[in-house]
Amino acid sequence: MIALGIEYDGRAFCGWQRQAQGERTIQAAVETAISAIAGMPQFATAAGRTDTGVHAALQVVHFAPAVVRPLTAWVRGVNAHLPADVSVRWGVEVAADFHARFSAVSRQYIYWLGDRPTRSALAHGRVGWTHLPLNAPLMHEASQSLVGTHDFSSFRASACQAKSPVKTVQSIRIVRVGERIRMDIQANAFLHHMVRNIVGALVYVGAEKIPAAQISTLLAEKNRAHAPPTFAPDGLYLAGIQYPAHFAIPEAFVDVVM
Amino acid sequence: MIALGIEYDGRAFCGWQRQAQGERTIQAAVETAISAIAGMPQFATAAGRTDTGVHAALQVVHFAPAVVRPLTAWVRGVNAHLPADVSVRWGVEVAADFHARFSAVSRQYIYWLGDRPTRSALAHGRVGWTHLPLNAPLMHEASQSLVGTHDFSSFRASACQAKSPVKTVQSIRIVRVGERIRMDIQANAFLHHMVRNIVGALVYVGAEKIPAAQISTLLAEKNRAHAPPTFAPDGLYLAGIQYPAHFAIPEAFVDVVM
Repeated sequence: MIALGIEYDGRAFCGWQRQAQGERTIQAAVETAISAIAGMPQFATAAGRTDTGVHAALQVVHFAPAVVRPLTAWVRGVNAHLPADVSVRWGVEVAADFHARFSAVSRQYIYWLGDRPTRSALAHGRVGWTHLPLNAPLMHEASQSLVGTHDFSSFRASACQAKSPVKTVQSIRIVRVGERIRMDIQANAFLHHMVRNIVGALVYVGAEKIPAAQISTLLAEKNRAHAPPTFAPDGLYLAGIQYPAHFAIPEAFVDVVM
Repeated sequence: MIALGIEYDGRAFCGWQRQAQGERTIQAAVETAISAIAGMPQFATAAGRTDTGVHAALQVVHFAPAVVRPLTAWVRGVNAHLPADVSVRWGVEVAADFHARFSAVSRQYIYWLGDRPTRSALAHGRVGWTHLPLNAPLMHEASQSLVGTHDFSSFRASACQAKSPVKTVQSIRIVRVGERIRMDIQANAFLHHMVRNIVGALVYVGAEKIPAAQISTLLAEKNRAHAPPTFAPDGLYLAGIQYPAHFAIPEAFVDVVM
């Protein structure tokens, strides 16, 4: 089995997952590139199926190669067949029982959010934005009620296919960095739109539209209809995936600095 | 007179300057937007006429408004008429003798350069790249011979229209930041392609293709044909323009962090 660490700018993609209708997806781009190297169709499985407009500093993908190729072919060779907005960081041979998604024990996302009065051309599509000044320490404080094992139905998209709405958030950290706010969140797994729904609610707290204590109320209500709207995908980066050490995956986290 | 601080992602533009052939330029985008607010054609002059693919964290533009509009119209109103990859940071009324280009006393550029083995999808078009490992302290050391008032003909594009090749470089600083190298350069003014030609030569030094001492030799030769090739525009950001204090321009420098 081969595992690849990949990176992408999600702006021009309809998310990870291959679409029947033939939209531009990261999965289709990766499968086309590895198939070109293999000389026959190859299918790839990702750790996290990111949405339209969501980026990855580190996404992990696995596939069962139908042919033997040196690792450099799966890295530099695949890179040569990928469009400019997807790239392979590394490739490794892994044990046959490795599964990019099911072997993962936790994931990390970073959300970058700007709150200056005017939009930023350089940050377009790469940083979420609200013109409302945000209170980052208040957002951090409010977020701490989400840490732990909870039913996250209030932060779950209606289209979510997860078997259970119960997930364990291991940590959330929100800090201001100049004219931007950075949120780091780590969990065993995430529901569909969970990070963007959490960001949406925390932006309401930061803008003082709702009190900080309402985050724990929303969580307890287990009702998506009561929560503030989903925030834009622009500033969202899949940045880390952790696997049991015996798989010897070379990178567990790639920072996104702005 | 109105001065605007603007920001742009240069990837999808054929540089600042309006082209007769109607290519997409930042000047055309800005003039279209301010003309829409004025209700009549308006022309804009920039501090620096950046090339195709070059970005600006801070570009300064001036124009003589044909009609009176509140400043907010020249900021938020113009922003509403600009494409996503250009934005107005601020607008101020300035003295009638202000000229974005001729009043400027110095300019600063930042060049971000990656030297990891594989290309980066997230950095595409935003960070220059070479797969050769670079020695940043050696590049910094070599660059110091360029500081001061010199004839920069060895780093000047053949198409350069400047009256004189003599410019004063006030400072160059090159540091490694993780898997990237950052170069900051400040000068009274720059020749056409001067920063990219300096980066091209310093990359040769960093990759140990030429000795550090050759930078001063190249400078003394005043011959573009002897110098290494121009580097890509991808990692180049116009980041600062300094004016005499009496013009009261609100920002002199905007950092670009990666």
